[in-house]
Amino acid sequence: MDSIKIQAPATVANLSCGFDVLGVCLNEPYDEIEIIKIDKPEVQIDILDSKFSNIPNIPSQNTGGVPAELLIRDLKLNFGFNIKIKKGIPLCGGLGSSAATSAGVVYAINKLLNSKLSDIDLLKYALEGEKVSVSNPHADNIAPGLLGGMILIRDTSSLDISKVPINNFYFAIIHPDIKISTEVARNILPPSIKLDLAIQQWGNLGSLINAFHLQDLNLIKKSMQDVVIEPYRSSLIKFFDEIKKISINSGALGFGISGSGPSMFALCENENIAKEIVNNSKEIYLENNIDCDTYVSTVNNIGPKVI
Amino acid sequence: MDSIKIQAPATVANLSCGFDVLGVCLNEPYDEIEIIKIDKPEVQIDILDSKFSNIPNIPSQNTGGVPAELLIRDLKLNFGFNIKIKKGIPLCGGLGSSAATSAGVVYAINKLLNSKLSDIDLLKYALEGEKVSVSNPHADNIAPGLLGGMILIRDTSSLDISKVPINNFYFAIIHPDIKISTEVARNILPPSIKLDLAIQQWGNLGSLINAFHLQDLNLIKKSMQDVVIEPYRSSLIKFFDEIKKISINSGALGFGISGSGPSMFALCENENIAKEIVNNSKEIYLENNIDCDTYVSTVNNIGPKVI
Repeated sequence: MDSIKIQAPATVANLSCGFDVLGVCLNEPYDEIEIIKIDKPEVQIDILDSKFSNIPNIPSQNTGGVPAELLIRDLKLNFGFNIKIKKGIPLCGGLGSSAATSAGVVYAINKLLNSKLSDIDLLKYALEGEKVSVSNPHADNIAPGLLGGMILIRDTSSLDISKVPINNFYFAIIHPDIKISTEVARNILPPSIKLDLAIQQWGNLGSLINAFHLQDLNLIKKSMQDVVIEPYRSSLIKFFDEIKKISINSGALGFGISGSGPSMFALCENENIAKEIVNNSKEIYLENNIDCDTYVSTVNNIGPKVI
Repeated sequence: MDSIKIQAPATVANLSCGFDVLGVCLNEPYDEIEIIKIDKPEVQIDILDSKFSNIPNIPSQNTGGVPAELLIRDLKLNFGFNIKIKKGIPLCGGLGSSAATSAGVVYAINKLLNSKLSDIDLLKYALEGEKVSVSNPHADNIAPGLLGGMILIRDTSSLDISKVPINNFYFAIIHPDIKISTEVARNILPPSIKLDLAIQQWGNLGSLINAFHLQDLNLIKKSMQDVVIEPYRSSLIKFFDEIKKISINSGALGFGISGSGPSMFALCENENIAKEIVNNSKEIYLENNIDCDTYVSTVNNIGPKVI
């Protein structure tokens, strides 16, 4: 195989109470990545035209370029890769855009190498790519972006991860055009939190994991609450309270900030609820002259897809 | 039915990373409680002789007496109860001794009333009983002590609880005769904790719940770590580090302080490991002239038992 074309999916990290430890893979939006083997052991990147094409094409500055170069070096390949990236995932939006490029490139190169790398190796290289965009990346976008489904990260340094069953849900994704860098979103958080709040948060997270296994929608609804991070970060997102109210009133099982925002997600039992939420949310932003992309997606249980 | 005799089981709260939100019910040790209907709508308590008989027999000061009186009042009963309690669970040991009395009495009275109360009502009355011994009780002993198995408490005030599957494990329980009151154990904790540590703790708890569902022993082992509470409370328990080392070296899947201590538990794959741990641990305490009770128990999945 000399070339491959894939979809690299968006991911929702944190899922309210699972800050830094939980992420889920979506079917939409996604990037398209085509990789063609070239004779020289080097990496070339072409950014194809799209709404979100404003990313570097210099390999050392691109989250897909870095792991590609590392793979050439570490595996002593005598060939290289031309990587064509068509971004479909909003940049700096909290939907794992940089992780999608990184995970997608690593996944695709591994396919070109007849899948010689293990999942853990793939994760390691993809995380190296993410370091281009954030200094100390967690695996809460990379792991679901590579492996699909909902992933719990016990510990990033040892890549100690496990899958949590999640099926038959719809995600309403609202991405208002508000600029928040991951670093700003992180720096707004306090270094310490009240023990009482921490206990509430881990009670909620434990119950959320239990609820997904038990398929207990009522418990999912009660558990999907973020009492630690949301009170800080929601202040960075205009109309957050309004969108949350719309989502809950429409019947969402849960609502929260996706990753470090500004995107928000609503977990829904069915497609109609998700559609109602994105439509009503979009209206609010457009009325206030803020551009807004929205998506309705099922859970992607496999990760990147060859197309 | 005019009388009933039951076993009211011990419970292990917290289970390392699940501080205040997780508890499990054991088959041993247990209290024996006999309740006999009497003509007058009042409560009489007899404390039968045992190693741990030093508890109040005045109903308003006894964790079983209080809910019994409340039940007589609220249900407008025209009869009362003579309650005979034979304590088998060490007092102030971190094994849910006060909760066992409370849960056991409520369970037994409900049987005498032809099970007219719901589980949630039983929990409420049992929690009222626990308030005799601790000002702001959590349900992490009461809930598993009443319902059996492993219980996750998302929120105590709304009694929002769920069961987590746990089977085929053995608990080694080591109870050294060291006095620690629940209040002292609570006051040693800091009011705030580093966000990083909180994230580690909820990553561990989420993974532990996932691991029990997936029956992934390796993940249980990695997840059952308490980075928040144990560093403080372990200082109150002489030879804690030694007992932890013995347990891990013997092959325990997890080890920690049971409730607020001084009891410690080791979660074990089989009975032999658990026996080795309790024997070696007991030796250390006895060599140092500290009395020590030990138990090896399977998980009690039903709670109190009629005998």
